[in-house]
Amino acid sequence: MKALLNGVEVQDAAHAVAVDDRGLAYGDGLFETALIRDGAVRFLDAHLERLRHGCDRLDIEFPHAALLEDIHTMCSSAQSAVLKIIVTRGTGGRGYRGDVAMAANRLLALHALPAHESHNGLVVRWCDLRLSRNATLAGLKHLNRLEQVLAQREWREQDIDEGLMLDTEGELVGATAGNVFIVRHGTLLTPDLRFCGVRGVMREQVLRVAAERQLPCNEEPLWPHDLEEASEVFVTNAIRGIRPVVALEDRRWRAGPIAEQLSVMLKL
Amino acid sequence: MKALLNGVEVQDAAHAVAVDDRGLAYGDGLFETALIRDGAVRFLDAHLERLRHGCDRLDIEFPHAALLEDIHTMCSSAQSAVLKIIVTRGTGGRGYRGDVAMAANRLLALHALPAHESHNGLVVRWCDLRLSRNATLAGLKHLNRLEQVLAQREWREQDIDEGLMLDTEGELVGATAGNVFIVRHGTLLTPDLRFCGVRGVMREQVLRVAAERQLPCNEEPLWPHDLEEASEVFVTNAIRGIRPVVALEDRRWRAGPIAEQLSVMLKL
Repeated sequence: MKALLNGVEVQDAAHAVAVDDRGLAYGDGLFETALIRDGAVRFLDAHLERLRHGCDRLDIEFPHAALLEDIHTMCSSAQSAVLKIIVTRGTGGRGYRGDVAMAANRLLALHALPAHESHNGLVVRWCDLRLSRNATLAGLKHLNRLEQVLAQREWREQDIDEGLMLDTEGELVGATAGNVFIVRHGTLLTPDLRFCGVRGVMREQVLRVAAERQLPCNEEPLWPHDLEEASEVFVTNAIRGIRPVVALEDRRWRAGPIAEQLSVMLKL
Repeated sequence: MKALLNGVEVQDAAHAVAVDDRGLAYGDGLFETALIRDGAVRFLDAHLERLRHGCDRLDIEFPHAALLEDIHTMCSSAQSAVLKIIVTRGTGGRGYRGDVAMAANRLLALHALPAHESHNGLVVRWCDLRLSRNATLAGLKHLNRLEQVLAQREWREQDIDEGLMLDTEGELVGATAGNVFIVRHGTLLTPDLRFCGVRGVMREQVLRVAAERQLPCNEEPLWPHDLEEASEVFVTNAIRGIRPVVALEDRRWRAGPIAEQLSVMLKL
């Protein structure tokens, strides 16, 4: 695995990160998972903008110039790959608080693209685990991801592709590793994520092109019954793109025209 | 800093942990912070029992025998210190889920004891950040600690020692780095932590000796007004012991007899 830690190539990926990195100690940081295609990061500006916003919210200095250099280095060694970027508040510091100003740590790693799935439509289930509500952290792709880990460990069936998650009040939030859109009476709808969930980069692209092409579209609170009444359902993710949902328990959908149209518009 | 990673002494604490350790990637693990005194871990059984319980809840194999060896090694090199133990689900694995059975990673590190505070009573404030509710993770000392990090970063005043935290519904949970007890009409009360918070090792010791000595004691939902009406308030923590709260905004308390009595019983 090729990796860069604070701009220096990691010689031994098994022994790289500081014992007291705050990302390990407390999940005190953020990450991005981006697609490298033809030697460039797709939607790079959107990934960087989300990371900058997350750093602002967590009061971590955004290491912009250094990250651009790191990303340039990584892209020069892969035509097609998954690029994972982690930014943590830094190393050490006193207890939970850390020091007032710490130097952020940057860790970038290249991974192989996921194996091509045999079918295009997703078979999904409801996860039992409910996402906790916290408006302060809502939307951020921070390193506190135990809820997603436990949700994905709920099932082992090979024929289930994804899990859909509700929050503790029963509102629809998204998939374990993606955002959810539905089509209702011709309008594109997605949860507004005011209390939890991650504001995905692909979600943002969908909202952007929908606005540009004047597709009716709204971010709002959604509930399980909205999904079951939808004419079309799809999941978005920066690596996997836009994936139609074809089955949830007894409910079936066909891969729909809007997901297809958006994939074409976004050149996925 | 002396540290052990999976039983091997860390030669370079700045480059020790795997790039894709799941503790760093997702906070997918647990930790303990224990006091070494006279070359032995205080309340070792309680720390190990909590860690075992956390591993069970997160479906991580509890590396019991190996941890005992690690702890023995660490205690042989320090008479008085803070011992931090991190157990993560392991290295790598596919996405959030990880592989079905992974070998857990163990990271132990010794830190200096915190400087002796100049006074015994704590001056506390209310934190603005509210803790999210998630019964699945409640009580565990897992590595998803961004809420505590952000809460401690809310204040910089040197004369504030701790912050008290409420959950999103306004219930009292505890301090940013400790549990809270109050005395009301002679009864010892502490939040029941059914939705959030950490079940501290010192909290458990207090409940244990209170039961043994037949002090009236209860775990139940508490709210800010309960605290303000209390005759005595104290914060418990495995390193700092039992610390009376003497001020919260305009409210003042004296260091009370029950905190004192419990400290003596527990030989703190």
